[in-house]
Amino acid sequence: MAGAWGRLVEFGVEVRSKVLAFAEKFWRMGADDPRKVIHGVKVGVALSLVSLFYYIRPINDKFGRNTMWAVMTVIVVFEYTVGGCLYKVINRGIATLSGGSLALAAHWMAAKSGPKAEPVILSALVFLFALAATFLRFMPTVKARFDYGITIFILTFSLVALSGSHVDDLTDLTVERISTVGIGIATTVSVCIFVCPVWSGQELHFLISRNLEKLAESLEGLVEDYFPINGDSMDRTEIASKRSHSYKCVLDSKSSEDSWASLARWEPPHGWFKFGHPWQQYSMVGVAMRHCAYCVETLHGCVNSETIKRPEFWEKHLRDVCMKLSSDSSKVLKELSSSVKTMKKSPSVNLLVLEMKNSVEELRISLSLLTEQLPFIQTRPAKSSELGNENSSFIDDRDVAVVLMPLTEAMALVTMTALLIEISTRIEGVVEAVATLAELACFKPIGNDESRSKVQAGEQELKPFHQV
Amino acid sequence: MAGAWGRLVEFGVEVRSKVLAFAEKFWRMGADDPRKVIHGVKVGVALSLVSLFYYIRPINDKFGRNTMWAVMTVIVVFEYTVGGCLYKVINRGIATLSGGSLALAAHWMAAKSGPKAEPVILSALVFLFALAATFLRFMPTVKARFDYGITIFILTFSLVALSGSHVDDLTDLTVERISTVGIGIATTVSVCIFVCPVWSGQELHFLISRNLEKLAESLEGLVEDYFPINGDSMDRTEIASKRSHSYKCVLDSKSSEDSWASLARWEPPHGWFKFGHPWQQYSMVGVAMRHCAYCVETLHGCVNSETIKRPEFWEKHLRDVCMKLSSDSSKVLKELSSSVKTMKKSPSVNLLVLEMKNSVEELRISLSLLTEQLPFIQTRPAKSSELGNENSSFIDDRDVAVVLMPLTEAMALVTMTALLIEISTRIEGVVEAVATLAELACFKPIGNDESRSKVQAGEQELKPFHQV
Repeated sequence: MAGAWGRLVEFGVEVRSKVLAFAEKFWRMGADDPRKVIHGVKVGVALSLVSLFYYIRPINDKFGRNTMWAVMTVIVVFEYTVGGCLYKVINRGIATLSGGSLALAAHWMAAKSGPKAEPVILSALVFLFALAATFLRFMPTVKARFDYGITIFILTFSLVALSGSHVDDLTDLTVERISTVGIGIATTVSVCIFVCPVWSGQELHFLISRNLEKLAESLEGLVEDYFPINGDSMDRTEIASKRSHSYKCVLDSKSSEDSWASLARWEPPHGWFKFGHPWQQYSMVGVAMRHCAYCVETLHGCVNSETIKRPEFWEKHLRDVCMKLSSDSSKVLKELSSSVKTMKKSPSVNLLVLEMKNSVEELRISLSLLTEQLPFIQTRPAKSSELGNENSSFIDDRDVAVVLMPLTEAMALVTMTALLIEISTRIEGVVEAVATLAELACFKPIGNDESRSKVQAGEQELKPFHQV
Repeated sequence: MAGAWGRLVEFGVEVRSKVLAFAEKFWRMGADDPRKVIHGVKVGVALSLVSLFYYIRPINDKFGRNTMWAVMTVIVVFEYTVGGCLYKVINRGIATLSGGSLALAAHWMAAKSGPKAEPVILSALVFLFALAATFLRFMPTVKARFDYGITIFILTFSLVALSGSHVDDLTDLTVERISTVGIGIATTVSVCIFVCPVWSGQELHFLISRNLEKLAESLEGLVEDYFPINGDSMDRTEIASKRSHSYKCVLDSKSSEDSWASLARWEPPHGWFKFGHPWQQYSMVGVAMRHCAYCVETLHGCVNSETIKRPEFWEKHLRDVCMKLSSDSSKVLKELSSSVKTMKKSPSVNLLVLEMKNSVEELRISLSLLTEQLPFIQTRPAKSSELGNENSSFIDDRDVAVVLMPLTEAMALVTMTALLIEISTRIEGVVEAVATLAELACFKPIGNDESRSKVQAGEQELKPFHQV
C-alpha cells in the first residue's frame, strides 16, 4: 500500500515537473516574442466581435444559421502576417465568387435538361472541376499564389451545385452566405491590419538584413577562432567560436524567405515600402547570401579539422593578411546589412569592396612570397621586415636550419586562404544583388553631410595594399 | 479598319500561342508524372461518391442540409499522400470530438448561469480558447504535428458553443454532423489508400536514395570536368558538366524531406515499411548529405573559377589520384544509395570506405612528393614511374629547366585536393547516418551467395594504396 502510494506521489511529481517545464517553455516563447501573444489576443478579439452577431437579434434574424460562416471565415482566414491574411482573403473572395457563380450557371443549365439528367450533369461537372483544380495545384507558380483559392473554388462550386437540388431559394442562400463571409472578412482584415500588424514584407526585410549581419559575424569569428591570440581570455575565444556558428541560420532560411516573399506581394504599401516593392529581389539576395554561406560552412569544416598540423612559420606569415581579408569581407557584409536595413544607398560600399579586393591581392602576394622560400622553414623567429621584402630570396645559411616541410601540413592553411578568396568573390555577388535591390526599390541616397563624413571615414579606413 | 483587324488577329494569335504553351506545360506535367493526374481523378471520384448521398432519399432525409459537411470534409481532407490524408483525418477527428464535447460542456455550464450571463460566459470562453490555441500553434513541435487539428478544434468549439444558443436539439445537431463528417472521412480514406496510393514514407525513402546517387554523380562529374581527357568528345564533356550540377537538388531538399518525414509517421505499415519505421533517421541522413553537398558546392565554385592558371606538371601528377579519390568516394555514395533503396545491408560498404581512405592517403603522399620537388617545374614531360618513386629526390639538372612556380598558381589544385579530402570525411558521416538507419530499420543482410560474390567483387576492386 505504502509502495503504491509512493509510486503515485512519484508519478504526480513527474507530471508536475513536465507540466512546469512545458509552461516555462510556453512562457519563455511569449516573453521572447510578445507579438505571438498579441496575435493570439487579436484572434480572440476578432472571434468575439463576430460572435456578437449571434446575439444581435436583427442581424441574427436576417442571416439565421448562416452566421456560422462568419465565425468560420475568421478562424480559417486569420493569419499571423497581414500578407498571409490578405492572400487568404483575396483568394477566398475571388474563389467564392467565381465558384458560386459558375455553380449557379451549371445549375441553371442542368435544370433545363430535365429532372433525370440534372443530377448526372451536376455530378459530372463536379468531377471534372475537381480533377482540373486538383491537377492545377501541382503547378509551382499556381501553387505559390492560388493554392488556397483553388481549394475554396472547388468547395464553393460543389456545395452550391449539389445543395442547390434541395434549396429552392438558391439565390437567397448565395447572397446570405456572401454577406456573412463578407462580415467575417471585414472583421478579420480590420483587426489584422489595425491592431499591431505584422507585415510579411517587413519580416523579410529585416531577416535579410539580419542574415547579412550574421554572415559577417560568422566569417570574422571563424578566422579569429583559427588564429587565436595567445593572450586571449577564454571568454573571448568562446565568443569567437560562438559567433562562428551564426552562418547556420543563413543556410536554413530559404523556406522562410520564399514564403515571406510570396506573401509580401499581397500587402498594401506600408511604412517604407511602396506599392510594387521588389520583394522577389530579396529572395535573390538570399540566394547570393546562401551561395556565400555554403563556402563559409566548408571553411568552418576545414578550419576545425584537427587532423593536419599547422606550420607555425606559415601561420605567422599569413595571419595578418588573412585576418585583414576576413575583417574587410565582413565589413562589406555589415555595410550591406545596414544599407538594406535603413534602405539607404551606401556611399562607402564600393570603397569597401575595393579594399577587400586589395586584401585579396595582398594575400596572393604573401602566398607567392612564401613559395619562394618553400620548402624551407626558418627555425629562428622570422623578422617581418625580412619577409615583407619581395626580393629577399637570399637566405642566410648560418642562422637558419633548413627543414623539409611537406605541402600536406600547409594544406589546411592554403585551403583556408583559397576559401577566403572564394568567399570574397561570392560576396561580390551579394553586393551586386543588393545593388539591384537598391535600384529597384529606389533606396535613398544618404544626405549630403552624412554621406560626406561617411565617405571620409571610408577613405581613412582604406589604405591601398602597396602602402601597408 | 484594316489596322484594327490586324491588331485583333495579332492579339488572337498571341492569346492562342499562350494558351497552347500553358496547355503543353499542363500536358507535359501530366505525362511526366501520371500519378498527379491519377490524384485528380481520385479526388473527383471521392467527391462524386459523396455527392450520391444528396440523391439517395433515405440518407438525405435523415441528414438534410448537414450532407454538405461530407462534401466539405472530402475537399479539405483529401491530400496527395496517404500520410497527409491521415494526418488531416486524425487531427480533424480528435479535434472535432474534443472541441465539440468541450463546447457542449461549456454550454451546459453557461445555461446554468442564467440567460443574461450565458452569452458573456460563452464569448469569454471562445476568446480564451482561441488565444491559447493560436499561441500554441507557434511551438515548432506542436505545429509540425497538430497545426491542422488546432484550427479545427477552435473552429468546432466556436461553432458549437455559439450556434448552441439558437438550436434547441444541440445533441442531435452534433450527432448528425459527426455522422456526415464520418461518411466524408471514410470515403476519402478508402479512395486515398485503396486506389493507387502515394505513400509519404516511400517518397522520402526514394528521395534519399536518389539524392545519394545524385551527389555521387555530381562529385564524379565535377572532377571529370576539371581534368578533361584530351580525346574527349564534346558530348562527354557536356555530360560531365551537366552531371556536375546534380548536387543542387540535394541542397534544396530540406523542406520536402522534413515534410515527408513528419507525414510518414501517420502512415500505417505498408510495403517494406513496418510499424515504427525510423522516418526521423532519414532526415538525419539528409542532414549528413547536405553537409557533404555544401562542400561539393564550394568545390564546384573553386573548380570553375578561371582566374587562376593551372600548372600543367602538378595537374598531371595529381590527376590520377584525384580521379581515383573522387571515383572511390562516389562508389561509397552509390553503394549507400543502393543499400537504402533495396533496404539491404551492404556487405561491401566498409571495404569501399577503406578504399576511399586509402585513396586519401595516396593523395596525401602524392602531395608530399610534389612538395619535395617544389618550387621547380620540369618542362619535359614527367615520367610517372619517376614521380611515383618516393625516394627520387634527385633531379637531373641537365634534362630539366628550372622554373620558379608560385604557390598561387597551384592554389586551386591544392584547394581541390583539400576539398576532396574534406568531402571524403563528410561522406563518412553519411555512412554513419545510413548505418544507424540500417540498424533502426532492421535492413536485411544480403543472402549468403549474393553477399559472398559481392564481397569478392569488392575485394577485387580494393587494392591497398602501397600496391598501386
